[in-house]
Amino acid sequence: MDVAQRIDALRMRMKENGVSMYYIPSNDFHNSEYTGGYFKCREFISGFDGSAGTVIVTMEEAGLWTDGRYFIQAEEQLKGSGIKLYKAGTEGTIKIRDYIIENLPAGAVLGFDGRTVPAAWVENILSSFEVTGAKINSSLDLIGEIWEERPHINQKPAMLLDICYAGEKREDKIARIRDYMHKHGADCHIVTTLDDIAWILNIRGNDIHCNPVVLSYLVIGMKDIILFAGKDALGWKAENVLAGAGVSIKDYNDIYNYVESFRSGSKIMLDKSTVNYSIVSNIPAGAKILDLVNPSVLWKAVKNNIETANIREAHIKDGVAVTKFIYWIKKNMGRIPMSELSVAEKLEDIRSKSENYAGPSFDTIAGFGSHGAIVHYSATPATDVPVEPDNLLLVDTGGHYLEGTTDITRTLLIGNKATEEQKKYYTAVLRGNLNLCDAHFLYGCTGVSLDYIARKPLWDMGCNYNHGTGHGVGYLLSVHEPPNAFRYNVLPYPGENAVLEEGMVTSDEPGIYIGGKFGIRLENLILCVKREKTEYGQFMGFEPLTLVPFDRDLINVDLMDAKEKELLNNYHKKVYENISPYLDIEETEWLEMVCAPL
Amino acid sequence: MDVAQRIDALRMRMKENGVSMYYIPSNDFHNSEYTGGYFKCREFISGFDGSAGTVIVTMEEAGLWTDGRYFIQAEEQLKGSGIKLYKAGTEGTIKIRDYIIENLPAGAVLGFDGRTVPAAWVENILSSFEVTGAKINSSLDLIGEIWEERPHINQKPAMLLDICYAGEKREDKIARIRDYMHKHGADCHIVTTLDDIAWILNIRGNDIHCNPVVLSYLVIGMKDIILFAGKDALGWKAENVLAGAGVSIKDYNDIYNYVESFRSGSKIMLDKSTVNYSIVSNIPAGAKILDLVNPSVLWKAVKNNIETANIREAHIKDGVAVTKFIYWIKKNMGRIPMSELSVAEKLEDIRSKSENYAGPSFDTIAGFGSHGAIVHYSATPATDVPVEPDNLLLVDTGGHYLEGTTDITRTLLIGNKATEEQKKYYTAVLRGNLNLCDAHFLYGCTGVSLDYIARKPLWDMGCNYNHGTGHGVGYLLSVHEPPNAFRYNVLPYPGENAVLEEGMVTSDEPGIYIGGKFGIRLENLILCVKREKTEYGQFMGFEPLTLVPFDRDLINVDLMDAKEKELLNNYHKKVYENISPYLDIEETEWLEMVCAPL
Repeated sequence: MDVAQRIDALRMRMKENGVSMYYIPSNDFHNSEYTGGYFKCREFISGFDGSAGTVIVTMEEAGLWTDGRYFIQAEEQLKGSGIKLYKAGTEGTIKIRDYIIENLPAGAVLGFDGRTVPAAWVENILSSFEVTGAKINSSLDLIGEIWEERPHINQKPAMLLDICYAGEKREDKIARIRDYMHKHGADCHIVTTLDDIAWILNIRGNDIHCNPVVLSYLVIGMKDIILFAGKDALGWKAENVLAGAGVSIKDYNDIYNYVESFRSGSKIMLDKSTVNYSIVSNIPAGAKILDLVNPSVLWKAVKNNIETANIREAHIKDGVAVTKFIYWIKKNMGRIPMSELSVAEKLEDIRSKSENYAGPSFDTIAGFGSHGAIVHYSATPATDVPVEPDNLLLVDTGGHYLEGTTDITRTLLIGNKATEEQKKYYTAVLRGNLNLCDAHFLYGCTGVSLDYIARKPLWDMGCNYNHGTGHGVGYLLSVHEPPNAFRYNVLPYPGENAVLEEGMVTSDEPGIYIGGKFGIRLENLILCVKREKTEYGQFMGFEPLTLVPFDRDLINVDLMDAKEKELLNNYHKKVYENISPYLDIEETEWLEMVCAPL
Repeated sequence: MDVAQRIDALRMRMKENGVSMYYIPSNDFHNSEYTGGYFKCREFISGFDGSAGTVIVTMEEAGLWTDGRYFIQAEEQLKGSGIKLYKAGTEGTIKIRDYIIENLPAGAVLGFDGRTVPAAWVENILSSFEVTGAKINSSLDLIGEIWEERPHINQKPAMLLDICYAGEKREDKIARIRDYMHKHGADCHIVTTLDDIAWILNIRGNDIHCNPVVLSYLVIGMKDIILFAGKDALGWKAENVLAGAGVSIKDYNDIYNYVESFRSGSKIMLDKSTVNYSIVSNIPAGAKILDLVNPSVLWKAVKNNIETANIREAHIKDGVAVTKFIYWIKKNMGRIPMSELSVAEKLEDIRSKSENYAGPSFDTIAGFGSHGAIVHYSATPATDVPVEPDNLLLVDTGGHYLEGTTDITRTLLIGNKATEEQKKYYTAVLRGNLNLCDAHFLYGCTGVSLDYIARKPLWDMGCNYNHGTGHGVGYLLSVHEPPNAFRYNVLPYPGENAVLEEGMVTSDEPGIYIGGKFGIRLENLILCVKREKTEYGQFMGFEPLTLVPFDRDLINVDLMDAKEKELLNNYHKKVYENISPYLDIEETEWLEMVCAPL
């Protein structure tokens, strides 16, 4: 079946079920950004395989909404499908919510699988349907009905994370959560976000590609804790250890019946922005829902001292691997054949030699020339191109280690001489990256207050990058982890505008994308640290964690001021000091050269 | 009765009414920032007369919460009262909400006047009381019972604002609101914020000192509109004009009975963050409340072309007045006696000669020397000091004109030579002011994204100012007008994180306050304007509206970079060109000198 046939089949099912519009988000049952194969309904129905996107199908139209990272990719992948691309966030593009409301007359039914949509989203739609008279049917997995070779749900064995990595016992984390529940009068706390569950219980799994989480739901009572997980998710050893912390195991799907048993008057703490509608609508009306952001979201983001020490180690290991990789590229470019796929393999090869390496934190993006301008490009055998002089190679890559998760982007000149245009843009992006890391700010700022610093060099030129400047990064967990971020727009969801706290790890990754020519992105992870405390308050700053040189062949020094040059020189000095001890003589000589002061 | 006796009297009434804690905010019945004398209960009970503050009285304790602008003033005014000062927003200070919840055991009663508290605040408290078991009594005006010489409610005659000033007919504004109501399915819209009512109906009044609003409530139905106002608020002429737009008049207090008559099933649009609890709790349970920010909040902030053209004129008039004032000070300082009060009078004297001048937009703050470090200092005969060499005079002042409202702060050297310390701080504040006005940003930013620019020079020095960088300013309305602002913290209330739109007027007013020595604040109003549109989107910037020179005697040029000097020189050129035509020869010569390029 091609995409058009799949949509036809879906429309048949829609007719049978009296549904006028069917809604297919990217989500699994846990509001995950990345999902296992079983959950990739939106990809199945549209052919678009970016990490973010939503499809809506009516009898007349099929549309895909995705964000700026994926415009180019979506245009490619939707060709011939008959699906219209809605460029979310751009002028004149209708919002999904408005599209749904405006296209469903009174009595018409919006169908979806209530397990794949956060409760808050459905309740918001329902408040508009009260006015328009449209209806919902939330119990329809219509993609499941037409998807013949749907993969199984992944539920592989999990592992327990040692205290020397986690830095805090699961019992202590649970106690903190119970204190928080007590303060808010909750009897029970439902957690369905997989990284929160992994963090709370100090477990790691293998159920989502590149995301070491365990597909499960967690219900924390004041006495009992139930983990709803796959049969074989935990061996008897792990089950014993968890039992010691008061955790018992039930089957993954039992959560839906379980929540039906909540007593009237009981108070259930959960975050309607992440918990799915089917769970929330199964809770008896007599129970009271306390709609609060999971406290683990913030606590997980604020890395403890043991985690921070480990993360610094992980970045030295990863810095060594990526530095060796860049040296290899620079030495061999134009001499031996390279392609986007082969250089990504080479990098994985080098990285996999590191101790305690636990796999990539996402599929490496190696985009050469015009592919670099596709923000979340992912090379396939069909799109793969040679990497050869003269153009830019953008490599966005990261690894999981027992000591933490990394995420780095470097843009490399492949060839001997960059164009003035390439240098102009590279230098602007570099200045944004360096200046953001150098921010000196009073405690209380969110990333919204600092995003301008990274964009200023580009905005001054009338340019921009259509993605956030940075995202939080988990500890051996999600490479995109809320609630810390750098962006210039204030989000309505309070859990995404977090004040920057000491111990938070965020990416600093401005970029510029010149369609048809090249893309530039420079990404370091930076650790939020305390600076001086004065009578005016506690000042804060950042420490760069990522330790890999920038490409001096792409810098136009004349465009940098004295302060910016000093920032770059200091950074390169730190790179050299930390990375050179792990390199061979040739690599060391090269690193010394590329890290020499400007 | 002194403050201590008043608190004793209040405690007597609390006992009689079975109240454990009594809550006294600054608010009138309209959530106004500034209020008429009748509503100044918090000032009556505490003696603290700053514009922001909340008092809580229990049988054991009385506490005042106020923000950073008022710490020094509150400390002074609370001396001997027995009231404890809680410095809101500083480390270790309990929040009012937490104080209430932690200090009221099960069964204990929190008393307040439900007309003086937004509904959202009460509902938030009630959700915690569900857990703790505490209760409320919202029908107690206990201050009213003990306040023997309480002023009457001000309800003076209002005027109609001509279309040549308002720029949009009241009928058109009402039609826009009804469209919005229709879109959200509302039958009725309750507006209680006084500046919204004045804007919607193009009326101006005289009921709050320096705030040209009409004390009233407005209920907009799909057919009828009712203005609940004082008997004599509108003459027969104005009543006729309003009747022509479908507005009928009822008595001010009738709103409370009126809302009781809403039919079950009707949909009432109102903003629980501003509409008081008594109104909301009087609405029958069968009616549905749509809790939305008033659309007029945003529309009022986005000045139309006629308003913008008028505002530029108002700023030339005001710039001429303030420039003449500064010239007069500089010429006469050390020669003729001056005091904080006398210079403020002098300024009012000059300003009142302007055509269409409608009075001050707030009481001028003239703070000399250490008084300048008290952010919202207001001189009284008791605190008045001579203005004489050598120190700094901070003057924060503004006027209402039919063409708009101004707000400006200048800090002047009184004497011949500034200290290096004064210059260092003045230059840092000036750089922040100039750089913020020069911001070049993509559409979509709120003031949160740009605040850092103004603070950076001070933060780099480990300094800060404990107030926002800027607030919206109304058109012949409130000098503090949401939803636009510059601040570094994201507020939870969505109506206060507005995207900066073309036509918004915001203040740009960094400062520094060196306790016991001097204060520096430099404030211009700036207009948000469109810049170039590129393939990356619409870029935005600001145009300075305020046209008054900065004090070059206080600038250390060595601390400014080339770009900053250029910004200052361009600004001074604009000041000279616009203001000099209205000055006499001596004033013009002086202005040319102080506006000469650095």
